Amino acid sequence: MSTTLDAYAADVRAAVADAREKVSALHAELPRWGLVVWTAGNVSQRVVVDPAGPSERDLLVIKPSGVTYDELTPETMVVCDLQANLVDGDRAPSSDTAAHAYVYTHLPHVGGVVHTHSTYATAWAARAEPVPCALTMMADEFGGDIPVGPFALIGDDSIGRGIVETLRGSRSPAVLMRNHGPFTIGKDATAAVKAAVMVEEVARTVHISRQLGEPLPIAQSDIDSLYARYQNVYGQH
Amino acid sequence: MSTTLDAYAADVRAAVADAREKVSALHAELPRWGLVVWTAGNVSQRVVVDPAGPSERDLLVIKPSGVTYDELTPETMVVCDLQANLVDGDRAPSSDTAAHAYVYTHLPHVGGVVHTHSTYATAWAARAEPVPCALTMMADEFGGDIPVGPFALIGDDSIGRGIVETLRGSRSPAVLMRNHGPFTIGKDATAAVKAAVMVEEVARTVHISRQLGEPLPIAQSDIDSLYARYQNVYGQH
Amino acid sequence: MSTTLDAYAADVRAAVADAREKVSALHAELPRWGLVVWTAGNVSQRVVVDPAGPSERDLLVIKPSGVTYDELTPETMVVCDLQANLVDGDRAPSSDTAAHAYVYTHLPHVGGVVHTHSTYATAWAARAEPVPCALTMMADEFGGDIPVGPFALIGDDSIGRGIVETLRGSRSPAVLMRNHGPFTIGKDATAAVKAAVMVEEVARTVHISRQLGEPLPIAQSDIDSLYARYQNVYGQH
Amino acid sequence: MSTTLDAYAADVRAAVADAREKVSALHAELPRWGLVVWTAGNVSQRVVVDPAGPSERDLLVIKPSGVTYDELTPETMVVCDLQANLVDGDRAPSSDTAAHAYVYTHLPHVGGVVHTHSTYATAWAARAEPVPCALTMMADEFGGDIPVGPFALIGDDSIGRGIVETLRGSRSPAVLMRNHGPFTIGKDATAAVKAAVMVEEVARTVHISRQLGEPLPIAQSDIDSLYARYQNVYGQH
Repeated sequence: MSTTLDAYAADVRAAVADAREKVSALHAELPRWGLVVWTAGNVSQRVVVDPAGPSERDLLVIKPSGVTYDELTPETMVVCDLQANLVDGDRAPSSDTAAHAYVYTHLPHVGGVVHTHSTYATAWAARAEPVPCALTMMADEFGGDIPVGPFALIGDDSIGRGIVETLRGSRSPAVLMRNHGPFTIGKDATAAVKAAVMVEEVARTVHISRQLGEPLPIAQSDIDSLYARYQNVYGQH
Repeated sequence: MSTTLDAYAADVRAAVADAREKVSALHAELPRWGLVVWTAGNVSQRVVVDPAGPSERDLLVIKPSGVTYDELTPETMVVCDLQANLVDGDRAPSSDTAAHAYVYTHLPHVGGVVHTHSTYATAWAARAEPVPCALTMMADEFGGDIPVGPFALIGDDSIGRGIVETLRGSRSPAVLMRNHGPFTIGKDATAAVKAAVMVEEVARTVHISRQLGEPLPIAQSDIDSLYARYQNVYGQH
Repeated sequence: MSTTLDAYAADVRAAVADAREKVSALHAELPRWGLVVWTAGNVSQRVVVDPAGPSERDLLVIKPSGVTYDELTPETMVVCDLQANLVDGDRAPSSDTAAHAYVYTHLPHVGGVVHTHSTYATAWAARAEPVPCALTMMADEFGGDIPVGPFALIGDDSIGRGIVETLRGSRSPAVLMRNHGPFTIGKDATAAVKAAVMVEEVARTVHISRQLGEPLPIAQSDIDSLYARYQNVYGQH
Repeated sequence: MSTTLDAYAADVRAAVADAREKVSALHAELPRWGLVVWTAGNVSQRVVVDPAGPSERDLLVIKPSGVTYDELTPETMVVCDLQANLVDGDRAPSSDTAAHAYVYTHLPHVGGVVHTHSTYATAWAARAEPVPCALTMMADEFGGDIPVGPFALIGDDSIGRGIVETLRGSRSPAVLMRNHGPFTIGKDATAAVKAAVMVEEVARTVHISRQLGEPLPIAQSDIDSLYARYQNVYGQH
């Protein structure tokens, strides 16, 4: 029995070490694509602790609070449970950890979450206006408009709840939290980072298009067909 | 006879190796000039297989699908025929390969094709509005307005057909496909990449100019004279 | 007694050497975040000479005048007293030194000052319009709107006086001097640089949001609660 | 006598070698500050051949035509006389050489000339609208509005003449040639590059300010006093 337990413990340690490596490397994508300044923004990934058990037992690996992008290494990442309690690490977790944890608890298919204040996405969020689907790349990646979530204060469940309720009603992996900024989800942290890059890109392109007139809408049937193809065919299989 | 065949085969191999090298290096220009994010965008070049035969027998070298710019090397590029079938390479070709192949088949003078979703060009495309020729550098490079192509879904010939039909009626090496983004052509891949850089530059400059008023048009005779000089005199001869 | 004096002098020298190092390194953050071009912009830090005495006796370390960002090293930084007289260094101090010195003299809790002409903050300053608090990150960092200071010519106390009078009536660590640009303050130079990065970020985001409509305001009680939490809880403690 | 001639020739050679080095290095500033794409833009510097003779005998060092920024070295720079004839170098000179030469011939105090198509300056030029002096840094550097020059075709003296006539009536070291882009001058190539960086910076800042209202003007007497101070006091003396 103790052999099994040892093996189990070793698996969890390996998965956490792996996630520390990956989450640390993915943070570099945020400044690279111009999504964050100073210490803003964070990426997390779920670590499945007990594949047969409830997902509430899982862990997450996330950036520590208020630390610059130059200082990020696998070792400085922190590990929390899904109640946002620190499980492993020398530093305080990101102040957005509770929102990430809420998403993992309530959306079991989500393996990665990203939060930024990227400029154009946040500009739509400040007006509480969804980004209309006027680009084929939006149809591909988001399957329609990018929705707006409620205004919510940090400190309790309200940000996490706002994210989950908004995304449940949408194909979009991105939500614009009002007056705040985008949160994105994905099957893993890489997919959530890709969605964070793409939400800023399409928020920017549609904004610029609308500055000089009205972008032409894409028919719903065309959006559906683009989304279906992209989700099933694109990339290396 | 077999000696001639061997020599012929060796020539094709050398041309393909050369094109792999060149197309891989040119992809680095797309993120360098801010034209793409994540894995978006692609560059291709025609390889002439049988100079005496019909151009439909030619090959093209293009980026694989859904691969990041950091992973691109001459070896990861893929080779397709002009029916967009994979001829050589370990990965699935870009999902835009059929559009590139259609252009090579129907425009025999074209040796390079580039596709991006660069922001300002795509913003004009989302309004289906041509970029008016209000800059001497537009007259030089594009010989007039930058035209808009039709809305077209991926999956059959309609994107390729839209590109070819629009460019046949224009001196411009760039077309803005509606709600989608720019495609550019050139005598080789380098010229098509230059056109991709320039179409974003002029789309951006004319956009910004129009934000605060109406850019002054350039007389058609001045456009013609600038275009004629630039195409014949500029550069190293 | 002379031993005490020697020790005192050694302390001052060590503090100055330390500040030269820090101020030189922090200047690199200004071009990194796109806040300055050519030789514009400057960062300073206070050096406390006599902790028991009046703060007017303190020194400040600042960038020399008209020197490019590539040439900055700890050795090229200059040391001035709070009357803006050169105390140590081979070069003329920044022409904004008098404004920095005025701030240190009249705001004893300030340990760092930064001045830039960052684009979006300066654009609001040219209209003499405060940036309205429409983002949770503005509530966090600035505790409300970012205020505008008076038009003031260089050459006497008027810039310094304008900064101090405007900031005394505000929680904001940033002031937009009319037709000129932002000045920011902090407990040390790092905090002032962070405020310089953040003022440009929020000036840009609110500007972009307002281009297509009116950003939704945040209730004053929500601003107060976000500000209180952020100032007390955020980061590593 | 031949000794004197040898010494004279050696002086000219040294001055040309020096200018090749400097002009090549300064070209790197154009992409660094985002002023150019691909092969656009050029920097030149005057070489005084005979200090006692007429300035029409001077030489100029400039970028070759259509060569990318990665390929620029002191050796690839070309030397022309002030009739724009190639005097030394393996490549064809920039197609803007005649305009540079005209400026050196007619403005003897000018030692450097820069031409770019930088985005915001060119956007004002496309509307033929001067940039109004609404920033203290504009008063410092340009002493007032940035003027617009006439529309002119390449191929004869008309661009050079338009630059010279416009700048003779202004304190500004920058002119926006209509539908074309900015030309800047300075006592040497470094000063002209600085003016090229600053003209884009102020064109961009005033553009952005005007997007949401009207920037407040600065009184002429304040502009005069800022300009006088900056030209005489700023920097290291």
